[in-house]
Amino acid sequence: MLPAPVMDRDAVAAFLDEVFPQIHHGGPGPVVESVGPMTATMRLPYHERHLRPGGTISGPAMMGLADVALYVAILSQVGPVALAVTTNLSFNFMRKPAQADLLAEARLLKLGRSLAVGEVLIRSLGRDDLVCHATGTYALPPK
Amino acid sequence: MLPAPVMDRDAVAAFLDEVFPQIHHGGPGPVVESVGPMTATMRLPYHERHLRPGGTISGPAMMGLADVALYVAILSQVGPVALAVTTNLSFNFMRKPAQADLLAEARLLKLGRSLAVGEVLIRSLGRDDLVCHATGTYALPPK
Amino acid sequence: MLPAPVMDRDAVAAFLDEVFPQIHHGGPGPVVESVGPMTATMRLPYHERHLRPGGTISGPAMMGLADVALYVAILSQVGPVALAVTTNLSFNFMRKPAQADLLAEARLLKLGRSLAVGEVLIRSLGRDDLVCHATGTYALPPK
Amino acid sequence: MLPAPVMDRDAVAAFLDEVFPQIHHGGPGPVVESVGPMTATMRLPYHERHLRPGGTISGPAMMGLADVALYVAILSQVGPVALAVTTNLSFNFMRKPAQADLLAEARLLKLGRSLAVGEVLIRSLGRDDLVCHATGTYALPPK
Repeated sequence: MLPAPVMDRDAVAAFLDEVFPQIHHGGPGPVVESVGPMTATMRLPYHERHLRPGGTISGPAMMGLADVALYVAILSQVGPVALAVTTNLSFNFMRKPAQADLLAEARLLKLGRSLAVGEVLIRSLGRDDLVCHATGTYALPPK
Repeated sequence: MLPAPVMDRDAVAAFLDEVFPQIHHGGPGPVVESVGPMTATMRLPYHERHLRPGGTISGPAMMGLADVALYVAILSQVGPVALAVTTNLSFNFMRKPAQADLLAEARLLKLGRSLAVGEVLIRSLGRDDLVCHATGTYALPPK
Repeated sequence: MLPAPVMDRDAVAAFLDEVFPQIHHGGPGPVVESVGPMTATMRLPYHERHLRPGGTISGPAMMGLADVALYVAILSQVGPVALAVTTNLSFNFMRKPAQADLLAEARLLKLGRSLAVGEVLIRSLGRDDLVCHATGTYALPPK
Repeated sequence: MLPAPVMDRDAVAAFLDEVFPQIHHGGPGPVVESVGPMTATMRLPYHERHLRPGGTISGPAMMGLADVALYVAILSQVGPVALAVTTNLSFNFMRKPAQADLLAEARLLKLGRSLAVGEVLIRSLGRDDLVCHATGTYALPPK
């Protein structure tokens, strides 16, 4: 049995906008689509500030999306008190994204007292093929 | 639609024993449990040569298990001709394994012409909790 | 004996500005400080568009810096023809950056015919402590 | 100024043999060559139990060598009390090892209160080319 999240989609989205206003700096940033037990889904709107020549979404935009998706999965599970710090991120890039929004599905593999580990699958909206796979580790502050 | 594997469980197990006899050196090595479209499941029997003090299975034994499980997933998909070379392996260790066999579920995330990428979930047999998560990248030889 | 680079600092900086104009979008992007045999040093100017609340430089800005530093190290070594594609990036974040420019020292560990591997050490300008360590793998196109 | 190690080569080698006798199970295991401030060098003797067909040293043998080299670097720095737990290991494999001993040079990039991060360069004895590059993260127990 997975534990139920303590924050729902609206609560976590409001918290994110409050503490990280800069993710929307210069244009629309990642949007919380849904949260569930140990999971979060985020969408990055296709926007020129995330693009590389050729219209493909940049690596840093994808990497930031993966990081925030794992952060949201942790946040919805443990509540707004926690300040998780990213200690490790690892990415495999598998194909160029389409000229479309990106969808990131984050899943926590472990949520311990001091460490959280999760993975993220990133696809172009409406496509099955993976664009990027990421794993991340987060240090959690003592309560 | 995922492509069907070209080698079944028995064929890939026989090939593995033929080309990697040393995985069984000093005691039972990893066993192919099943293969499917882009997947393979392997089991590492609990045996003293894989142990650390305290009866827990060693890190290198788990890392070797992850690597061979991804290799088997590639092999069953592309056939015995291919000689895949591991170029990258990344592991997150999440908890100590129980005093039991280990089960590794490998899944290919990408199988391109020159590169394969996959992930592996490792659990103690009969448990739900993840012991280890691995990702791997393999260079495939030109046909 | 390491091979001598085929492009010097000015040539590689001009090429970078030409093919990746968007790294300077919205403010100053990473600057090529120097290139050497299998190495490149890049500096990311401290600028508000890279910041998180508290004045610290964002993870995506650091990740993009590491990626471009390895790309420049490859480029200066093999020339402007090559189109290297990032296949894997892995980061360990060690401490928060200071409110200062970031300095990234990239070093190629391998430059093969089809694959390049390198590492990057990132520090705040004028500090000894590492902020971030990155490793990256790049697929090189056939000549 | 790097801190001086609290255990010298002989002390750390004796401790390692005492707590990990099984690294020498079935034949000679990794040998501590030297320790220094934040560093350790270990050598894996060329022995049939580490080999793959063709006489090349196996991936798991290299991965175990990298892990123990980082563990020794931490141990010599903080003393025999500490029980570091590996949380993340990441490997880039760059070329096949020669039919020779392997030399692993480990270096700690960060030694914090609860987390240590380091990297390892592995070469065949007497060669310059890198065989493998590894990074590792270790959770340190509260004092």
